[in-house]
Amino acid sequence: MPPLHGHSLVAGRRSAEGGDWFNAVSPIDSRPLPGDFRVATAAEIDAAMAAAHAAAAAFRASDGGTRAAFLEAIATGLTDLGGPLIERTHLETGLATERLRAELDRTVGHLRMFAAIAREHSWHDPRIETADPGRRPLPKPDLRRLLLPIGPVVVFGASNFPLAYSVAGGDTASALATGNPVVVKAHEAHPGASEWVGEAIAAAARQAGLPGGVFSLLQGPGTRLGGPLARHPHTRAIGFTGSITAGRALFDAAASRPDPIPVFAEMGSLNPIVVLPSALAHADDSARTAERIGRSIVGGGGQFCTKPGIILLPDESAAEPFRRRLADLVTATAPATLLHAGISRGFEEGIRNIAAGTAATLTARSAGTGIGATGDCRAAATLVEVTASGFLAEEPLRHEVFGPFAVMVRYASADEIPPILRALGGQLTASVFGTTDEIRSNRLLELLPEIAGRVIVNGVPTGVEVGSAMQHGGPWPASSDSRFTAVGSAALLRFVRPVAFQNVPDSLLPPALQNANPLKIMRLIDGRPSAGSL
Amino acid sequence: MPPLHGHSLVAGRRSAEGGDWFNAVSPIDSRPLPGDFRVATAAEIDAAMAAAHAAAAAFRASDGGTRAAFLEAIATGLTDLGGPLIERTHLETGLATERLRAELDRTVGHLRMFAAIAREHSWHDPRIETADPGRRPLPKPDLRRLLLPIGPVVVFGASNFPLAYSVAGGDTASALATGNPVVVKAHEAHPGASEWVGEAIAAAARQAGLPGGVFSLLQGPGTRLGGPLARHPHTRAIGFTGSITAGRALFDAAASRPDPIPVFAEMGSLNPIVVLPSALAHADDSARTAERIGRSIVGGGGQFCTKPGIILLPDESAAEPFRRRLADLVTATAPATLLHAGISRGFEEGIRNIAAGTAATLTARSAGTGIGATGDCRAAATLVEVTASGFLAEEPLRHEVFGPFAVMVRYASADEIPPILRALGGQLTASVFGTTDEIRSNRLLELLPEIAGRVIVNGVPTGVEVGSAMQHGGPWPASSDSRFTAVGSAALLRFVRPVAFQNVPDSLLPPALQNANPLKIMRLIDGRPSAGSL
Repeated sequence: MPPLHGHSLVAGRRSAEGGDWFNAVSPIDSRPLPGDFRVATAAEIDAAMAAAHAAAAAFRASDGGTRAAFLEAIATGLTDLGGPLIERTHLETGLATERLRAELDRTVGHLRMFAAIAREHSWHDPRIETADPGRRPLPKPDLRRLLLPIGPVVVFGASNFPLAYSVAGGDTASALATGNPVVVKAHEAHPGASEWVGEAIAAAARQAGLPGGVFSLLQGPGTRLGGPLARHPHTRAIGFTGSITAGRALFDAAASRPDPIPVFAEMGSLNPIVVLPSALAHADDSARTAERIGRSIVGGGGQFCTKPGIILLPDESAAEPFRRRLADLVTATAPATLLHAGISRGFEEGIRNIAAGTAATLTARSAGTGIGATGDCRAAATLVEVTASGFLAEEPLRHEVFGPFAVMVRYASADEIPPILRALGGQLTASVFGTTDEIRSNRLLELLPEIAGRVIVNGVPTGVEVGSAMQHGGPWPASSDSRFTAVGSAALLRFVRPVAFQNVPDSLLPPALQNANPLKIMRLIDGRPSAGSL
Repeated sequence: MPPLHGHSLVAGRRSAEGGDWFNAVSPIDSRPLPGDFRVATAAEIDAAMAAAHAAAAAFRASDGGTRAAFLEAIATGLTDLGGPLIERTHLETGLATERLRAELDRTVGHLRMFAAIAREHSWHDPRIETADPGRRPLPKPDLRRLLLPIGPVVVFGASNFPLAYSVAGGDTASALATGNPVVVKAHEAHPGASEWVGEAIAAAARQAGLPGGVFSLLQGPGTRLGGPLARHPHTRAIGFTGSITAGRALFDAAASRPDPIPVFAEMGSLNPIVVLPSALAHADDSARTAERIGRSIVGGGGQFCTKPGIILLPDESAAEPFRRRLADLVTATAPATLLHAGISRGFEEGIRNIAAGTAATLTARSAGTGIGATGDCRAAATLVEVTASGFLAEEPLRHEVFGPFAVMVRYASADEIPPILRALGGQLTASVFGTTDEIRSNRLLELLPEIAGRVIVNGVPTGVEVGSAMQHGGPWPASSDSRFTAVGSAALLRFVRPVAFQNVPDSLLPPALQNANPLKIMRLIDGRPSAGSL
């Protein structure tokens, strides 16, 4: 591995104009890691955006095969980084190397999926309506529509997926696949991993013969770079994964521009799980369900956006095996190294706010040290319990606590379920365990789609499939626009816009709309799908 | 026709709680028209939104056939209103009855198109990924996604399309077709037409057996009702057509909510037309082109959102027949009765601001009286001329002047075209006249899609087709989100959001996702389109 240079990459080239710098601090021992990272300056932000703007037309016009080769070269580059990248990412995030290896595979999978999409070209979603010069009262023109890239996209890397939702993550891959130049603001908690991945992207762009402006990587804290990037005149859209506070700040900055731009921010979620009495009918099944839910709560240090934070459990004796198993699992959980000091502080503060109330009681807590003098944190997995009315009375219980923590809400009757769910706000996911009959009689498949983007029956929300049927996004504050997804092939719809061409001569049309159908793709012609020519 | 009661319709029923009232004022003679309209109160706004919220679940679950019957009953109701509706609308807007008859046909066409879409069900865009329990390292779940209604939609009626983009216009039709309750804020310039159309919708809802909450109509000025509606907790999305100022105010109100909601505002556009030298090669063709463009400028009083406001014309002698024909046509245009006093004032002010500069010269003006003592306006069709550098130097020339007005920008060489176009901001449309070769050599089919939602060759932008290939929306300020369209079948995408169902038993799934495919629609199954069952 090359040593870390600590520079930003402006239009693919190293740039270190500023005097301010920072180190990555390992959450494992709270010590600075090697590498001095320069905070990108206002001039560097401007240069990156100007280069992205300048590259936009050529990138939009680039062949899908070229963009596919670009994405595949990134995938190869990441695979080649391999062990040292995993090790550095582990040191920067505290995440287990095994988990990071799986995440790298997932990232490479994303890139290859979007490469295939770019090469196949169907994402343009071409629609052709042929002319009818004889139509009365007015002739019908020839009208052809396709999706085109929206323009330079700014991506804010996530701390909890330092590979899959960071520099070369799903946002970047979906934006590049559709021909949008990307400027990544590296998350300040893993600048080293970001630098290596960024260099791999820049190298892949050179290899694909694309202009340098299609990719820039800017180092520095979100509090300094976020606003200027969101307000920059050349920024056309934003992809973000992180906290509600940071997401809201970006959303507000983008909405207050003279020309507001779309922001897709994937923010907070409690991912409620409703356990119905029928799921507790057999003690063995019930304990197994508790085990699955428990692992979903504490897995990865409870730092998945789909971690279940609210478990609705009947307040009846049949729930006891479930409750005991879940409590035992939480108690036996090894303390979690959280991603960075900010998340550790948020975790402690969230639990402290709940403990300050009178409604919740502590059910289980694992070993853990809390934030020590050195600022590091071995977070204790924690489970609390509250009645339905207590839950509704104390607002801090409805705030996401990022980390290995969940609230069990004990309901006395099924009537209490809807008000609890409705009090949560928008969710990425909502799950229910129970028999089909009991789910139906409680009308949960009417209620859950109202509050969440993904509804799961007899399963846990963690583990987000990447494919055409995924929806990862939900009503605010799960995400800033519930009409889009951050995961899966439809994620590209965030960064494209339709353009219609009226009576445009065939040779001037984009290939996807030309009569001969040179891309050999499915098109909607006069309302009927066709892979043929005109 | 029933006499006008002047009430709002809250959940389909008459309501007149407030003491404030207003009259429609005819722009034809500046006199008040019959009908005292009560301004909806805060309590009525709240009641309408609460009823919409309460009706949302049942409406979401309603059969597509029921919604189709609802929309068709609205269409029949509008047709039955016929002559008296046209006459009242004419008096309220000053628009010619012939034009309004065509607009009524268009509105009925919209409604029937969306009825067919509702009945056919494919808008759900179902995507199914089947399970693979044997997949390593983790089993693959069964995942199924479809589009569902976003929830109560608030529609702000447009003044310039009092039928096709008002109470029962494209926004309402696309929202109702997909199962969203709609609350319409009637445009205060045509409250009478709004009342009759609103009553037809309420009657159609009753006939279809739908809850009254699926439709409300609120009377009153946007300055009083706009903010409360945009901020109401039950509002889930907004559709708007109108000025940049009003659209921006709604956008800002929606963006500053605790839970921001999407706004689709179709606002201002200059709709530039580039005339290349090759379009002027033959004097006859050139004059014909001038005539088409001239009619597009002055048609309907220049009050179409796609009216061309900027004509780029070479500064050469060959352009003289074009220039003369266009000037003659403008001079011969009958004075236009503009829609209402606000638009008349905006028209006069826009021209005054341009005249206050030194760059533009007057080329042609028709007869007209301007705003008289009584406040009415017979607007004089007006054409001014400016050099490329003059155009870039004086900012008022780049503001839309709503009404029969256009600026001819005389360019000395083709190099001046891109900077002029780039200075305009986002556009609904951009057109070019010329030979294929000349368009190609000027790379206009690269530039125009960048600034506009629809690109037209050798044609004028007025006349917006309604179909699957239309894009009516563009970069800000043409519309608030260039990723969506206000016209055509894709307009429904503004008001739907995807929901995924994971491992949900077949009998609990929405029909569109069930194994047997009871709706018999095309679905994407494991990446392949299929109309079959599983």
